[in-house]
Amino acid sequence: MSHTKVLPLLDPAEGQGAPCCPPVTERPMTSEEAERAARMFKALGDPVRLRLFSAVASHEGGEACVCDISDVGVSQPTVSHHLKKLKEAGLLTSERRGTWVYYRVQPSVLAAMGRLLAGAPAGA
Amino acid sequence: MSHTKVLPLLDPAEGQGAPCCPPVTERPMTSEEAERAARMFKALGDPVRLRLFSAVASHEGGEACVCDISDVGVSQPTVSHHLKKLKEAGLLTSERRGTWVYYRVQPSVLAAMGRLLAGAPAGA
Repeated sequence: MSHTKVLPLLDPAEGQGAPCCPPVTERPMTSEEAERAARMFKALGDPVRLRLFSAVASHEGGEACVCDISDVGVSQPTVSHHLKKLKEAGLLTSERRGTWVYYRVQPSVLAAMGRLLAGAPAGA
Repeated sequence: MSHTKVLPLLDPAEGQGAPCCPPVTERPMTSEEAERAARMFKALGDPVRLRLFSAVASHEGGEACVCDISDVGVSQPTVSHHLKKLKEAGLLTSERRGTWVYYRVQPSVLAAMGRLLAGAPAGA
């Protein structure tokens, strides 16, 4: 199931660099665009998950494993659960190395979401 | 109740221009920052609500009433309900003029959320 949701904010037809949606100030989103973007916002709509996301995003080297994140006040299985949810939403990628799974933020997705909210000056 | 939540992403101590949170790539968010920002992301985590938000944000003059938004495929009471939720989350402000309530995006909040996701180069 989760593998079908890997990069929902990117248009697969246009490749990795292309965000799905124009800035919200530009024009109303289509139903399909809203479905994709809402999935990501929903994933960030939980305080613990958002803290974990920022913990990964700001970690040295841009990646972190569960073993690196222990100061959010929830158990390691809960951390793992939330990181999986972020991955299913397309916000993180993961790679197993030895005992641990390392999570990394999708920079293009982050940029696309930021652009969607911040508005773009021109050329969009 | 709803009036206590008007600008959760802005620090009231620092005034309207100051976003609550640093870019997620800068450092892990505190529990309090995450609470505030997650409330907004959660509000955008529903496809219909996100479409309505973009409909208001992109409407002529930067504001819209329920009467302006009729092409999202939901009833007017449902539109009103969602706009109220967006207002409670601090993403929209509203003003009654005659028969209609007009909604407007909080540009500073939008910019703060965009910055939180997009990352800031320096001076943050």
